[in-house]
Amino acid sequence: MQSLRDILRRIAAGEITAAGALALSAARIAESESSILAFASRPAELAAGTGPLAGIACGVKDIIDTADLPTQMGSVIYEGWRPRSDAAVVMMLKATGATVAGKTHTTAFAASDPAPTRNPHDLGASPGGSSAGSAAGVAAGMIPLAIGTQTGGSVIRPSAYCGVAGIKPSYALLPMVGVKPFSWSLDTLGLMAASADDLGLALATITGRPELDATAAELKGLRIGVTRQDFAGAPEPAAEAALQRFCEIATGAGAQIVELESPQALSEAFHAHVPLQGYEATQALAWEYAEHREQIAPKLRAYLDGARSVTPAQYDEARRISRRGRDAARAFFGQVDVVVSYAAPGEAPDTLASTGDARFNRLWTLLGVPCLTIPVMRGPRGLPVGIQVMSGFGADDRVIAAAKALETRVEPIR
Amino acid sequence: MQSLRDILRRIAAGEITAAGALALSAARIAESESSILAFASRPAELAAGTGPLAGIACGVKDIIDTADLPTQMGSVIYEGWRPRSDAAVVMMLKATGATVAGKTHTTAFAASDPAPTRNPHDLGASPGGSSAGSAAGVAAGMIPLAIGTQTGGSVIRPSAYCGVAGIKPSYALLPMVGVKPFSWSLDTLGLMAASADDLGLALATITGRPELDATAAELKGLRIGVTRQDFAGAPEPAAEAALQRFCEIATGAGAQIVELESPQALSEAFHAHVPLQGYEATQALAWEYAEHREQIAPKLRAYLDGARSVTPAQYDEARRISRRGRDAARAFFGQVDVVVSYAAPGEAPDTLASTGDARFNRLWTLLGVPCLTIPVMRGPRGLPVGIQVMSGFGADDRVIAAAKALETRVEPIR
Repeated sequence: MQSLRDILRRIAAGEITAAGALALSAARIAESESSILAFASRPAELAAGTGPLAGIACGVKDIIDTADLPTQMGSVIYEGWRPRSDAAVVMMLKATGATVAGKTHTTAFAASDPAPTRNPHDLGASPGGSSAGSAAGVAAGMIPLAIGTQTGGSVIRPSAYCGVAGIKPSYALLPMVGVKPFSWSLDTLGLMAASADDLGLALATITGRPELDATAAELKGLRIGVTRQDFAGAPEPAAEAALQRFCEIATGAGAQIVELESPQALSEAFHAHVPLQGYEATQALAWEYAEHREQIAPKLRAYLDGARSVTPAQYDEARRISRRGRDAARAFFGQVDVVVSYAAPGEAPDTLASTGDARFNRLWTLLGVPCLTIPVMRGPRGLPVGIQVMSGFGADDRVIAAAKALETRVEPIR
Repeated sequence: MQSLRDILRRIAAGEITAAGALALSAARIAESESSILAFASRPAELAAGTGPLAGIACGVKDIIDTADLPTQMGSVIYEGWRPRSDAAVVMMLKATGATVAGKTHTTAFAASDPAPTRNPHDLGASPGGSSAGSAAGVAAGMIPLAIGTQTGGSVIRPSAYCGVAGIKPSYALLPMVGVKPFSWSLDTLGLMAASADDLGLALATITGRPELDATAAELKGLRIGVTRQDFAGAPEPAAEAALQRFCEIATGAGAQIVELESPQALSEAFHAHVPLQGYEATQALAWEYAEHREQIAPKLRAYLDGARSVTPAQYDEARRISRRGRDAARAFFGQVDVVVSYAAPGEAPDTLASTGDARFNRLWTLLGVPCLTIPVMRGPRGLPVGIQVMSGFGADDRVIAAAKALETRVEPIR
């Protein structure tokens, strides 16, 4: 993979130019794209911008508006569609000098119907979803940075399946203006890169919040809570093994592992994700459903057929439960410095027909708390398996600091 | 003005058809539009839909996406722009059988540069902003219903200036998908109509929440809190006179008036609106500012020039203050059944160069609580002056019920 910080260091040292760094990304894309299919569209050339991230080629998920490239939502309904303006996050990215390397494939409207993208670790395995192209593009070494979105687990899951680092920051840390909504109470922009270190640097630069380029945490004495999310069902053995490996590494470095009980309010909030998302998705895709139902990809169409039955009263109750969950989350995360859990149920599915399962991600998306996944080991099929580090709302710097400290102790998976 | 409930009653009674009701609106538009300038674009004809609001012609503010009509944001930057899809609220409207009568003029990007629209009560006076065309279209009797948005006071203020009833419901009661954002923590869709009674019926039907078509409240014993929003400065005598007239009417009907103190947390939240909106507007209009700064209308351009200086730390602090304000609002509104205050500082400005002042609206938009304005009297220049009725988050039905009971006791202003 391409390390964003390493590229910038080499540019600063005069070893390469920004244009040269982009040319390297372009060459990697020319080499790998035909087998990975990460991109829905790409510019004719990669021109360097001006600013601290000049030379960084960034993939942008294809539900995010761009004025210069089509924005096709992974759906024939938006084939060739050109928005008028760039999304706010694209403008933030451009202001850093980074270059949009292309629009990355998404599942249709960021739901469950697979994108054409392959997993670079196994071309027959799923790259996950919905931010499939963003994760695979980074994993294949084509781009050092990519933007995705998460409503259930669409940043953390594909990152874990593809063996890259991914962060879903606190809700609305990155502005959603110009991003196609699916469920506005949940939709959150995130980043993928080669490491937590790269994520911190990129997120700090894009948001103008230098504290997010956090110094690695002191592991000695760090209190790490472990939650197995019993309310979400059991993981596969590979995910449990990764969690245990992570805890061993942390303990070996002097951190303290604390097994956490899930309060009832969090379990209820987990289940509230279903009606919350269903009600909002029905409204967010009302035009597509009414005018182009037959062109909506089949899993999403079936989902919307069912979601229409969520009533306003059920939605209101889900919002009340969500609020109670967010209140309970403050105490839950307040017990420890960071919390760790499964990033996904296991390795990537051994099929291109499923994007996998977001059940270990949904609660945290609903709570709006920062989640960062790093790969920890390989599973029985040789695919990466990660964990996710989390903390309370707004403590993105703490999550980045802890993940940075721990990732250096994990044996690199590639 | 056209009464929505009356039109539906006549259709149900067979006195007119839905097509006939639309023809009446079309005739009114043909008659008045050249002097009022409420519409930025209109369809070639008004065709009746199917559903409970069939026959109702509705204006849609021109920052709200429509697939069949341009969406021009009140700005030359979006001249002739055609979105791919309808906004969620437009789909909700169409699902009721109502007909989009046209896109109504907005100030540029729903900020402060005046729209071309005139105030039907005085063609030289401001109709208010930003939802100028929506309010004026209803006031001129061209349409019985219109959709607007409020970030500061852009539904309540133009409604009050034009002498119509307007509701800014609880935050996100109407979904913002497909509406151009200005400040996503504040932006709220609302409705204008001839009366609170019409608003309740329309909002209940559009949202599928029948309880919003509330029965008029029992005024005897109703506890009405009065807040003069000292933190926002003094009103003009006309606004104070309208508030007092309203209280006299309420007291005469057996209601109990309770003078409310403003807790410090609300005063702080009022001031937090400035950095909150500034930071978000900078991001929401980043593309327009970077690519088309010279084409941005001058007041907005100057605003954005200044708003760029809000730091992430100031923004985060504003969000924390907002949250404390929302917590304090629960106790504040919990003291009484509804709260009443000024809808605007006074009559509409005697100029087309200013859209007036939102200082009595900003806090309530930030708190996300429902606000409903009804006209109460005429001011010294003969223009309407209203008050606004408010309650806690989610108590939209209570606000509608109280306003319905009180509006029947107010002498009609036209």
